[in-house]
Amino acid sequence: MSIDEISLRLHKKLKGKLETRSKVKINNKKILSAVYTPGVAAVSKAIAADSTLAKQYTLKANTIAVISDGSAVLGLGNIGPLAALPVMEGKAALFKEFAGLNAFPICLDTQDTEEIIRTIKNIAPVFGGINLEDISAPRCFEIEKRLMSELSIPVMHDDQRGTATVVLAALINAFKIKKIKFSQAKIVINGAGAAGTAVTKALHSYGGTHIVVCDSHGVIKLERPDLTTEKKIIASWLQADMKNVSTLEDALKNADVFIGVSKGNLLTPAMIKTMAKKPIIFALANPTPEIMPETALKAGAYIVATGRSDYPNQINNVLAFPGIFRGVIDNQVATITDKMLVKAAENLAACVKKPTTKKILPDPFDKKIVKAVSKAIKN
Amino acid sequence: MSIDEISLRLHKKLKGKLETRSKVKINNKKILSAVYTPGVAAVSKAIAADSTLAKQYTLKANTIAVISDGSAVLGLGNIGPLAALPVMEGKAALFKEFAGLNAFPICLDTQDTEEIIRTIKNIAPVFGGINLEDISAPRCFEIEKRLMSELSIPVMHDDQRGTATVVLAALINAFKIKKIKFSQAKIVINGAGAAGTAVTKALHSYGGTHIVVCDSHGVIKLERPDLTTEKKIIASWLQADMKNVSTLEDALKNADVFIGVSKGNLLTPAMIKTMAKKPIIFALANPTPEIMPETALKAGAYIVATGRSDYPNQINNVLAFPGIFRGVIDNQVATITDKMLVKAAENLAACVKKPTTKKILPDPFDKKIVKAVSKAIKN
Repeated sequence: MSIDEISLRLHKKLKGKLETRSKVKINNKKILSAVYTPGVAAVSKAIAADSTLAKQYTLKANTIAVISDGSAVLGLGNIGPLAALPVMEGKAALFKEFAGLNAFPICLDTQDTEEIIRTIKNIAPVFGGINLEDISAPRCFEIEKRLMSELSIPVMHDDQRGTATVVLAALINAFKIKKIKFSQAKIVINGAGAAGTAVTKALHSYGGTHIVVCDSHGVIKLERPDLTTEKKIIASWLQADMKNVSTLEDALKNADVFIGVSKGNLLTPAMIKTMAKKPIIFALANPTPEIMPETALKAGAYIVATGRSDYPNQINNVLAFPGIFRGVIDNQVATITDKMLVKAAENLAACVKKPTTKKILPDPFDKKIVKAVSKAIKN
Repeated sequence: MSIDEISLRLHKKLKGKLETRSKVKINNKKILSAVYTPGVAAVSKAIAADSTLAKQYTLKANTIAVISDGSAVLGLGNIGPLAALPVMEGKAALFKEFAGLNAFPICLDTQDTEEIIRTIKNIAPVFGGINLEDISAPRCFEIEKRLMSELSIPVMHDDQRGTATVVLAALINAFKIKKIKFSQAKIVINGAGAAGTAVTKALHSYGGTHIVVCDSHGVIKLERPDLTTEKKIIASWLQADMKNVSTLEDALKNADVFIGVSKGNLLTPAMIKTMAKKPIIFALANPTPEIMPETALKAGAYIVATGRSDYPNQINNVLAFPGIFRGVIDNQVATITDKMLVKAAENLAACVKKPTTKKILPDPFDKKIVKAVSKAIKN
């Protein structure tokens, strides 16, 4: 049976993967009076007098919202809130299974930036943190930025900063193997959506200087008239590398690293052969990578990573988000800063004692990971 | 230890009464691939092609939202969303414990009618039904009405129609004991907020003709210039009974029934003594009723009910809402109609084989209730 068939059958059988449960059995009048009226009034009064007590007395203590508008789901694109629901529900289930955190999916029936911001602010009281998910660029930049500044609970768009954390961790270990420094490596990033932009920012702030970023119109540079705000910011960092470089093909010549967060099958063996010796290929488009690992290796790639679980070196956000939000809750963090995430990436990389070309990241089920990542998320 | 102390300690220990859980253990790559990427993509694609499948494949199948703006919580009033959270969380826990339904609390950081409607519509995709809770009148009327017409999932404001269902059930049995008909009984309802208005509507539609309703300014009648839209509607039904009646005291003379959904301690023994012989007193203000049961009985009351668990005849919404939403889910109901709720009240009343003055309603832990009520909620 194919994985699709297995998944469809499982979902049909379960009628939802996530459930809510009372932590106490409510089977007599005394316990009913304690969890609900009249006893609960004392708890409400206490919180009315001191709102910080909500974090001690309610599920706000340890519950994360997984929120999407369904505009950029997996490799599927803009499929809307109902079709996004099984993904968000699955992610909520992962929060509990991997990090012991409660999580609840919210799929929004709007794709208007201001409406999304307003709605999330309106429902924020219930939650201890907000994981934004699968919201398309460029709206995702404004939404994350605004919510980070306007809410008192931490907010992270996982497709941006969660992905960047795992890519940085993977690259730290790949560079250990290849014995190259961030300041020396020539890095090409293909795709300038949510993930590509955040990965670029993370590698730039980690000391990457020779970085070229391409979108579907070619290399991003300031003279292009069609750049969004975020792309202009990226271009302003990277201008030095751009002299005679306009296309992905141009950019790849002598590059050490290709990071694809774009579309399947757009990297060819011929292109890999123009890169520097022993290149590193992260082909992260899902489910079909920019190039299949066996093809990339045959063309000379040294280390290959994908988003897939059926090949070595899976770049999987589940390596980061459970630990990040575990740290948020345990360490009472109000804002998840980029600095915390760099430290989280270093800690995640260090979970692999001896990185090899086939193991630059730990197995997702390695129990050390959540602890290592969460330690980095503190004020 | 007082119930307040027990409740505070329990909440502090639990850090939230409600938890979310994965229905399957996610402890190997195969199951991870089935509940999340890549397998979940097949489920998303199926729902994108046929949105009705969301009710088969996701938690939308059996999950209720418990939504409040914290404007009219228990006897506490407008305490805001954070202080309302332990109540909504408790209610969500009751949904699971009593009816096997998943439920999640949403406390809104706005009390603007249009903003509340918009926010709830935006988050509706996740849920199979919406239980509005503790929203103050008159905003609650517009919010319930609008959401009922603008959403495709069922919506009920429990303080209105849930309360009315239980009160009607209690009165059906009280009238059996007192051997009086709805068309004959002189009924006084004190309080014209969410509950009072809905109770009035329910009793009127069940054949009650001699009904007088009072708010804090006295008897509601058309000549009053200060009536809201809802109160005008009520007044238009009841005008016939209003000739020389302006105050609660006037209204109570020779009345058979007093239903208080107002404030503690406003019904006196002297007022009861002016009522008809063997009057029925429902003193539902919480936690302090309009008159204490022992005082009411001493003044001549025949049957006394309150909202309290420490006296006989508790009028408790938990007798209705779990079964109502169980019916919604089991019978794929799109709209909870008043007619369904009348039938639910009759079924609830019938759960008490032989009603007595001290038992007009079943015990909340009686396993028959949810089934009896849910059978009434069908198209």
